[in-house]
Amino acid sequence: MSQPRRILVVGGVAGGASAAARLRRLDETCEIVVFDRGPYVSFANCGLPYYVGNVILEERKLLVASAELFQSRFAIGVRTEHDVTAIDRARRVLTVTSLATGETREEPYDVLVLAPGAAAIRPPIPGIDLPGIFSVRTIPDSRRVRAWIEGENAKRALVVGGGFIGLEMAENLAHRGLSVTIVEKADQLMPPFDAEMAAPIADALASHGVDVRLGDGVTRFAPGRDGALEVTTERGATLTADIVILAIGVRPEVSLAKAAGLTIGASGGIAVNESMRTSDPYIYAVGDAVETLDAVTGARQVVPLAGPANRQGRVAAEAIAGRGTHFRGVQATAVCGAFGMVMASTGASEKALRRAGVDDYEKVYLHPGHHVGYFPGAKPIHLKVLFRKSDGRVLGAQAVGEEGVEKRIDVIAMAIQLGGTVHDLSEAELCYAPQFGAAKDPVNLAGFIAENARNGDMPLASWDKLGEAVVLDVREPAEVERGAIPGAIHIPLHDLRTRLGELPRGVPIDVTCAVGQRGYFAVRLLRQNGFDARHLSGGYQTYQTLRRG
Amino acid sequence: MSQPRRILVVGGVAGGASAAARLRRLDETCEIVVFDRGPYVSFANCGLPYYVGNVILEERKLLVASAELFQSRFAIGVRTEHDVTAIDRARRVLTVTSLATGETREEPYDVLVLAPGAAAIRPPIPGIDLPGIFSVRTIPDSRRVRAWIEGENAKRALVVGGGFIGLEMAENLAHRGLSVTIVEKADQLMPPFDAEMAAPIADALASHGVDVRLGDGVTRFAPGRDGALEVTTERGATLTADIVILAIGVRPEVSLAKAAGLTIGASGGIAVNESMRTSDPYIYAVGDAVETLDAVTGARQVVPLAGPANRQGRVAAEAIAGRGTHFRGVQATAVCGAFGMVMASTGASEKALRRAGVDDYEKVYLHPGHHVGYFPGAKPIHLKVLFRKSDGRVLGAQAVGEEGVEKRIDVIAMAIQLGGTVHDLSEAELCYAPQFGAAKDPVNLAGFIAENARNGDMPLASWDKLGEAVVLDVREPAEVERGAIPGAIHIPLHDLRTRLGELPRGVPIDVTCAVGQRGYFAVRLLRQNGFDARHLSGGYQTYQTLRRG
Repeated sequence: MSQPRRILVVGGVAGGASAAARLRRLDETCEIVVFDRGPYVSFANCGLPYYVGNVILEERKLLVASAELFQSRFAIGVRTEHDVTAIDRARRVLTVTSLATGETREEPYDVLVLAPGAAAIRPPIPGIDLPGIFSVRTIPDSRRVRAWIEGENAKRALVVGGGFIGLEMAENLAHRGLSVTIVEKADQLMPPFDAEMAAPIADALASHGVDVRLGDGVTRFAPGRDGALEVTTERGATLTADIVILAIGVRPEVSLAKAAGLTIGASGGIAVNESMRTSDPYIYAVGDAVETLDAVTGARQVVPLAGPANRQGRVAAEAIAGRGTHFRGVQATAVCGAFGMVMASTGASEKALRRAGVDDYEKVYLHPGHHVGYFPGAKPIHLKVLFRKSDGRVLGAQAVGEEGVEKRIDVIAMAIQLGGTVHDLSEAELCYAPQFGAAKDPVNLAGFIAENARNGDMPLASWDKLGEAVVLDVREPAEVERGAIPGAIHIPLHDLRTRLGELPRGVPIDVTCAVGQRGYFAVRLLRQNGFDARHLSGGYQTYQTLRRG
Repeated sequence: MSQPRRILVVGGVAGGASAAARLRRLDETCEIVVFDRGPYVSFANCGLPYYVGNVILEERKLLVASAELFQSRFAIGVRTEHDVTAIDRARRVLTVTSLATGETREEPYDVLVLAPGAAAIRPPIPGIDLPGIFSVRTIPDSRRVRAWIEGENAKRALVVGGGFIGLEMAENLAHRGLSVTIVEKADQLMPPFDAEMAAPIADALASHGVDVRLGDGVTRFAPGRDGALEVTTERGATLTADIVILAIGVRPEVSLAKAAGLTIGASGGIAVNESMRTSDPYIYAVGDAVETLDAVTGARQVVPLAGPANRQGRVAAEAIAGRGTHFRGVQATAVCGAFGMVMASTGASEKALRRAGVDDYEKVYLHPGHHVGYFPGAKPIHLKVLFRKSDGRVLGAQAVGEEGVEKRIDVIAMAIQLGGTVHDLSEAELCYAPQFGAAKDPVNLAGFIAENARNGDMPLASWDKLGEAVVLDVREPAEVERGAIPGAIHIPLHDLRTRLGELPRGVPIDVTCAVGQRGYFAVRLLRQNGFDARHLSGGYQTYQTLRRG
């Protein structure tokens, strides 16, 4: 009788736990052991900000599956508080140290799965190790933050970094009654989003009393008065905080893989093939530490997201079990809710396209209600959709608003996954009742606008080049009085047919209205009358809310 | 100079209004005139129940676009309260009567678009024309219902029919404080759904005090005491109501088309080709009156839905303008919200598959939370997904629950539209943050379960044949005590590896648990140990909530 295969997993959270559990379902005979440096496996790290914020009240809720459950349900051994310090690839042996006893032993493997995750970035700023400065990556981290807030009666919080975790922490600290300042190095919040799409979030934070400082960074932490921290910024501000949260981002934990001589990709993550196998045929790697393909641009990147980590765990398990599956890459679908606003995106941002050298793309903006306007409570969704000019393929979408935001991004995510075009968005048949959407859903509208742009019915003007052409505003006078693009000609749509003589021929006319619909009608009218009319996508709402001016 | 083309549109609500507006955007030169029997064009008929219910307070909100707007913005002539009584196809002339003046005139056309819609079914029940019995198809209908409720101080409502409109009317009447009884001829509410998926809705209505009478119909209306109506049912009940709403369904308005000799399909709708052209090359038809293809089964059917009506209007306009577009058929994506519950579906139901003679299908049930359980407020979604056994293609999905229901159906609708398989569902990368979903979203879980069923990892047992095989329940004793499938063997999952000897070999073992997850683990464990284990999809939750027992 042959010895059962011994499969070791390093890291027991999303990707590692998924790989182990899936493997057991595929193979009852192998031995599976999971090692984790921390005290828990399979915990809900996405819930940590909400535990800090007292939205999630019980710590045990964050434990998705305990070590005991892994053992009793899956016959998977779990060694928490065990640090894997070395991989001897030639002998296929791990060196493991128990953090509790200090004891070190060797653990042989037939196949190894690395799921070491990512660590919070802690830049070498003077004073960064002072008490009261925290990252939030683990349950013990959150416990320490909670204890500090309560023990020090913290009132003033500084969050360094305005990305997903930064915003969620800001919201949760505000929920606990702390005043919050965010310092973000970039000129926008939520750096993975295109800058204009993040503008409404900055507005929402400001209106909730959060002090948002963009384009600034921390240069020094120092002890301040009464136990507070004094924080100096690049722009010369001095801020006082009772607690500081570092949310600058994470870096893949590749030290173990690197020391073992595994190939590390140019993006800094562990290089893997489509089966999640590393450069060593006996070693797989999954989760936040690996380099994956961007499913849209094909760029190699490290994307720390829970959904892809779980999928990668499954793929690795299936490969180990001898099944022919493969990882299709990461679409980077993500969502963040904070201060009543929701921001979501899928596929490539315009930034990502530019970074990848893609210029065969076009973009549309729109601002539809999350459901029909005639039903009470409709909230606008600011939506940007990027598509390939040449064939209409949907490349990416970003949305921000209060309601129904992530629903539209999820639908577009599925369209991108299946290679859908903007025509497919216009053809989508989605749920409609007054409280849920519209007979022409925002997803349909995005498709209509993009198709009109593609087929030449409605060429798009570029917001980035506003002012290079004549601007025609077809809103009503009362709307124009409340604000308008400087220098625009004003002719209300219903007068346009009779006032065509006032418009110049032979030069581009960029047409705008409130949100784009009347502008579209005007563009059609003008083009059919021989004018070179183009559409400023999303109208004055784009100009105002997304600050394209 | 040639005369501009004259295009007439009969019916100015969803499909007709869309066709007219789209046509203008494609062609500034043609003359477009819309005729409607009613006083309004382009009104929001999906909002009528909510206007009755005082959720929508102002009638003018229901007017999407006025006749004046059509004229001033689109140069589209609108003749409301004009009845088109005949089509002379040879001469291409309509006979139109003004309902205001009684005057009749002829209107010549180059191209005609029929969008006559559908009429509420009013069965020839004795007493059906008594005062206090209403259908709700138009703004004046709703106005009459509101006036009756207020004028008669109505307290007891009877809704005949438990479909979309029936439930929405029930909810809105209850919202106004009326006690509501629903009489529905079928053995379930929401007849387009599979019966088991409608069970939770019946439960929700009952818990909100609605008297739901399934498998019963009205046989007689008679004047009762104090101005009330006395209603007799097939099962012999006598009900008293101050107001009766007929919501039995609609039938396509084909009388005009029929009289003109246009081909009517076997389903009763006007027959059209993929350009929405009728049997007459100069006549198009769109909306609730036409027969369309079911995009999944290919069956010809009449589906009264606003989204498809609008798409058809666009297609007809594009065909008339000489563009080569086509209508892809109807997926029948639909949603209904009532009494805190949301029901949504897309694609084929199991009923529809059977009706179409399809037997190459399989189904899975699941009951995931609408977001992760560790975040407060997760509500279960009861989800059924139908897919083709042979190639995994997704055929349809139905869901019911309180939150996040229509989002999942919308995502699956896009998957169906693009020919996606259950593998694509498992690969979906959807928005995840604790308050929005899960790293393994319900859509992913549906894909996992279906793929496991397809690839033989987890053959499915049939709930319809419960009791023909041994049933094994792997829940904990405390769960079993609260209710169980009669005759099941109980072995908790964590004891299963050590108690395999208690199970029979060589016969099918149908495994159940609470919602399916532990059952899946048990099936994998048993099958790898040589047992013929199958999975009862969705576990005891399916048995209990969907009443599959």
